[in-house]
Amino acid sequence: MPTPQPAVVLLSGGLDSSVLLHHVAKELHCPAIHALSFNYGQRHGRELVCAAAQSRIVGTKAHRVMDITFMGTLIQAGSALIQGGAEVPDLDALTTEELTQPPTYVPNRNMMLLSMAAAYAEAHGITDIYYGAQAQDEYGYWDCTREFLERINAVLALNRKAPVTVHAPFVGYSKEDTVRIGIMLGVDFSQTWSCYRGGEEACGTCPTCVERLNAFAANHREDPIGYAG
Amino acid sequence: MPTPQPAVVLLSGGLDSSVLLHHVAKELHCPAIHALSFNYGQRHGRELVCAAAQSRIVGTKAHRVMDITFMGTLIQAGSALIQGGAEVPDLDALTTEELTQPPTYVPNRNMMLLSMAAAYAEAHGITDIYYGAQAQDEYGYWDCTREFLERINAVLALNRKAPVTVHAPFVGYSKEDTVRIGIMLGVDFSQTWSCYRGGEEACGTCPTCVERLNAFAANHREDPIGYAG
Repeated sequence: MPTPQPAVVLLSGGLDSSVLLHHVAKELHCPAIHALSFNYGQRHGRELVCAAAQSRIVGTKAHRVMDITFMGTLIQAGSALIQGGAEVPDLDALTTEELTQPPTYVPNRNMMLLSMAAAYAEAHGITDIYYGAQAQDEYGYWDCTREFLERINAVLALNRKAPVTVHAPFVGYSKEDTVRIGIMLGVDFSQTWSCYRGGEEACGTCPTCVERLNAFAANHREDPIGYAG
Repeated sequence: MPTPQPAVVLLSGGLDSSVLLHHVAKELHCPAIHALSFNYGQRHGRELVCAAAQSRIVGTKAHRVMDITFMGTLIQAGSALIQGGAEVPDLDALTTEELTQPPTYVPNRNMMLLSMAAAYAEAHGITDIYYGAQAQDEYGYWDCTREFLERINAVLALNRKAPVTVHAPFVGYSKEDTVRIGIMLGVDFSQTWSCYRGGEEACGTCPTCVERLNAFAANHREDPIGYAG
């Protein structure tokens, strides 16, 4: 087994990246984790609060929040995930075309975030980046696929001095798998946030809420966060 | 000949990207150009002033300056191009190792900038991005090569709805070629800035100044910007 290395973990504060953080710390035993979060003008700051909480629980070496709210201007109202963008639709209201690229898609988001994470890693002498792309994301996001990851790594491999590699260990897993791993690793799910809408409580009806609730049900667990209505 | 399309041009205000902007406007006849500049905490604001001037001269549809100074924190003092970073060395002081990846290299810069440009383009329904990578840059920057460009485009080609393509028409050219094209297109070189150092006048001795001066000399022209000393 190779010696565990320091690592950068992309941590949104959502369910997937929170479980990933625990996996990198407790199963891969990385000695120094730099958690990176991005403030890109998302509808709620709640997930960033959860990211900070998970980072404290795991005992990361650093948790950095990159303020990239300029992206809101950059991509205007092109996405329902950004404040001022379109309304987030219910999962059952999505058309077939929207399922291919749903309105909650942010143009080129993952390439931007991974590029910045790679710059951060390189500047800190870290060669491994972990991010929480997983199977069910593939239904609508071209930038969560295995092929996307391979091509991103093909770019980064050209770096002559300090090539960085992006790993997505959950890419083959379903949300149900992720919840199961999280239970096994003792993740406090009350400190994770998934809802796409900006309410005080999770809505329970947007695509991410529905996926999350189904994943807990499949594991015969109750989701500890409260839902509206 | 295909109908000219709207385009995004990465415009630093340096010599290469300024000539590229004129090329896209006057030779490719793109009907609506969005010039994108980035404020990443470079040593001088001079090149951004030049970018604005060139944008006005050409008559672009929009000139956007993205403030990404957070990159300074992100990559710390990892580069001599950022304020607070190491001193910029003279070209003749560079070691062989530094010529492979010189101290003026900014970790993963071009992948970050192109990712953001692609997000901008996609959100605005634009499919073509132009950037000024060129041959002589290859001596030290892995992210200015033809191969880098091909791999970036391989990532972007995965986008299901709105694939964007990055073009670098000067990638096979030398700085001498670029100056010659600029002369032909009537570029006002006094409104371009290349020096890596933060002085009032260009230093004339850093790697970029030396390349620039040689390129003008090879074209039997005097560089209209003033040099120190």
